[in-house]
Amino acid sequence: MKTALSELGRRTAAPPISWLMSLALSRPKLISLAAGFTDNASLPVADVRDLLDDILCSPTAGRPALQYGATQGDPALLRLTADYLRALDGGRRGDAAWSEDRMIVTNGSQQMLYIATEALCDEDDIVIVEDPTYFVYLGIVQSHRLRARAVRIEKDGMNTAHLEELLESLKRSGELRRVKLLYLVSYFQNPSGVTTSFEKKSRMLKLLKKYERAAGHPIYLLEDAAYRELRFKGGDVKSALALPGARDRVIYTGTYSKPFATGTRVGFGILPEPVFTAALRIKGNHDFGTSNLLQQLLARALSTGSYRKHVEKLQKRYRRKAEAMGAALREHFPPDVEVWEPSGGLNFWARLPRGVRSGPKSKLFRSALAKGVIYVPGELCYADDPGRRKPDHEMRLSFGSATEENIREGIRRLGKVL
Amino acid sequence: MKTALSELGRRTAAPPISWLMSLALSRPKLISLAAGFTDNASLPVADVRDLLDDILCSPTAGRPALQYGATQGDPALLRLTADYLRALDGGRRGDAAWSEDRMIVTNGSQQMLYIATEALCDEDDIVIVEDPTYFVYLGIVQSHRLRARAVRIEKDGMNTAHLEELLESLKRSGELRRVKLLYLVSYFQNPSGVTTSFEKKSRMLKLLKKYERAAGHPIYLLEDAAYRELRFKGGDVKSALALPGARDRVIYTGTYSKPFATGTRVGFGILPEPVFTAALRIKGNHDFGTSNLLQQLLARALSTGSYRKHVEKLQKRYRRKAEAMGAALREHFPPDVEVWEPSGGLNFWARLPRGVRSGPKSKLFRSALAKGVIYVPGELCYADDPGRRKPDHEMRLSFGSATEENIREGIRRLGKVL
Repeated sequence: MKTALSELGRRTAAPPISWLMSLALSRPKLISLAAGFTDNASLPVADVRDLLDDILCSPTAGRPALQYGATQGDPALLRLTADYLRALDGGRRGDAAWSEDRMIVTNGSQQMLYIATEALCDEDDIVIVEDPTYFVYLGIVQSHRLRARAVRIEKDGMNTAHLEELLESLKRSGELRRVKLLYLVSYFQNPSGVTTSFEKKSRMLKLLKKYERAAGHPIYLLEDAAYRELRFKGGDVKSALALPGARDRVIYTGTYSKPFATGTRVGFGILPEPVFTAALRIKGNHDFGTSNLLQQLLARALSTGSYRKHVEKLQKRYRRKAEAMGAALREHFPPDVEVWEPSGGLNFWARLPRGVRSGPKSKLFRSALAKGVIYVPGELCYADDPGRRKPDHEMRLSFGSATEENIREGIRRLGKVL
Repeated sequence: MKTALSELGRRTAAPPISWLMSLALSRPKLISLAAGFTDNASLPVADVRDLLDDILCSPTAGRPALQYGATQGDPALLRLTADYLRALDGGRRGDAAWSEDRMIVTNGSQQMLYIATEALCDEDDIVIVEDPTYFVYLGIVQSHRLRARAVRIEKDGMNTAHLEELLESLKRSGELRRVKLLYLVSYFQNPSGVTTSFEKKSRMLKLLKKYERAAGHPIYLLEDAAYRELRFKGGDVKSALALPGARDRVIYTGTYSKPFATGTRVGFGILPEPVFTAALRIKGNHDFGTSNLLQQLLARALSTGSYRKHVEKLQKRYRRKAEAMGAALREHFPPDVEVWEPSGGLNFWARLPRGVRSGPKSKLFRSALAKGVIYVPGELCYADDPGRRKPDHEMRLSFGSATEENIREGIRRLGKVL
């Protein structure tokens, strides 16, 4: 008898790092520079307790927190989030580019990425991604049988000449009408740590706009700003929402999980019409709304200033951990390894000399494992793009969850293997 | 310029009751017998506060509650849920029919319904539903362009002769291979209040099994037990998990939202392989796991007995409200209205004499609205099935969120209109 699974059900693959996670779980002494978890010791346990206590002691807030809410999200959280983003981007009060009317609260920004992609892409449609990019997004792409086309990145973001080349070649081949969106992880990108400059965002949006005519429909810039607030060096870069025309073409997704507490899983998106309406309806079918209790927790964290204080603490903590990893890399890695040092986020990116393979089956990975340390092989972060061979000589090194001591020891061991 | 929306994005319709909800919001004095919200006054605010306090004061539980967890769910909640269901169904300890190994925790059971349907159904596939059925599930069906085939229900569940007829006719027309699942809301069905007897579940599963050969693949029984614990009369009916062969063919979904606190949005499903693996991967793409904080809250509510106590309180409360509605209906409704009285859940079902229309544009609905009371028109709960005309002479009357006083007054006003 055949399976009854749908095409999507049959196609959807296991996440590429699930074997890494099982590996780490089965060997508790392993130093994992692979886990994308956030720093455990910094989780705001006492803050969350106080905030929840306030909510659940309040005669007005307690019950609504435990009741259903609107699918779109808690009105207070929507407004606070819009105000917060507008302030970050230096927008004018009342500017609709940051309007809560087009915002949806989701279960982490991951759910927003899923829904936005569902709302826009049919099978065989094309999404443009960075090369490398966030591998969980590639899971969405794979499961919906979309095609990814990857554009090289540099230390300030996508190579826009390459982007133009790609768009031009898609135009020539008549495939531009299949291009629905460009997926950009704009701050301290997972995995490379790269932050896209505002100028590059502007150039990207202009290029998408230029090729829209040939596409016959809008091409959206989907900006995933999950790591934005985890900056520990330099000043914030404005988001694409601050660009002219953003209101009609930019989908911005953000999250409160990473900068506050990953266990709360609250994210959000701002979407242009008609994507907003479609996404809201789809969210209704998914779960008709994210937990009100969690939303009120985040709303209160924002309105009391507890959120901002926690973010500052976190930034300091990650700065220290990043410095520890940077110093260890300088001390223990051979000079022919090119290290990309981030200004925020959770990851360093290391490029080994061409020819030195880092993949799951490589000698390097197996030797590292034998020495009790793991990393994410870079090749897991590359889309299936027939236009190039997947690079297999890179490593993502996370300092998010390991202790400073383990970071130093892990890098020392990796250095020995190299 | 055309829209860039996907077919799903363009197709997904607004929920049929969103206009009812806006209506209620815009007229706060309206008595809503339409809202499916749970009773506000009974929400376990103090319990939740104490449980969260315990978790967040605990040196071992606090941090993990605020960290990412496994996509499948919190191991303690999975185990407690499996034990709880097994006990409800009178299963033997260790019986794999209720195994947590095939269980996934989701954002309400709604997300489980979405994912299970995604995992099984391609466009044009057929799902068999009760006639009437839960309208939000019909939204999933509509958005994925599935076809629904509806089977008449009686006071103890689906008319199984009609089900057999349908399966036979699908076999004859060669469409059986498009049938993937039968969706059954088995306890105090929304909207009709009907509970399916265990005998009928058994007959249904046997019929599905019988027609599998002609289908060429398994046909799953998707049992949605969202209201199971809201029973206030009679004893529990065993779920389909207690049937022989259930382990391979029954998908069971349940929720902690309705019997505890809707604002927590924690549900779950038990799924047979290979649906379980596909669903788990899809859940990974959706949001890689439901909030750990909420899961630990529910796990602790279960393990401390706080959950069970709350359910008992809730059952008493709903019994009183249902009695109030039943009495008011007997007093104020004309004798030619057939009232289906539930033994649990949140809804009565009233069938007016044929010819008296209850739809959104009917004289009845408009007169009721003018008198300040609304209900859910029955026709919104019927699938688009070319095999029959949609009945338009019924009403769903909810006693969940209205106060007893408003229930009496609302029914009195409706009686006058009738």
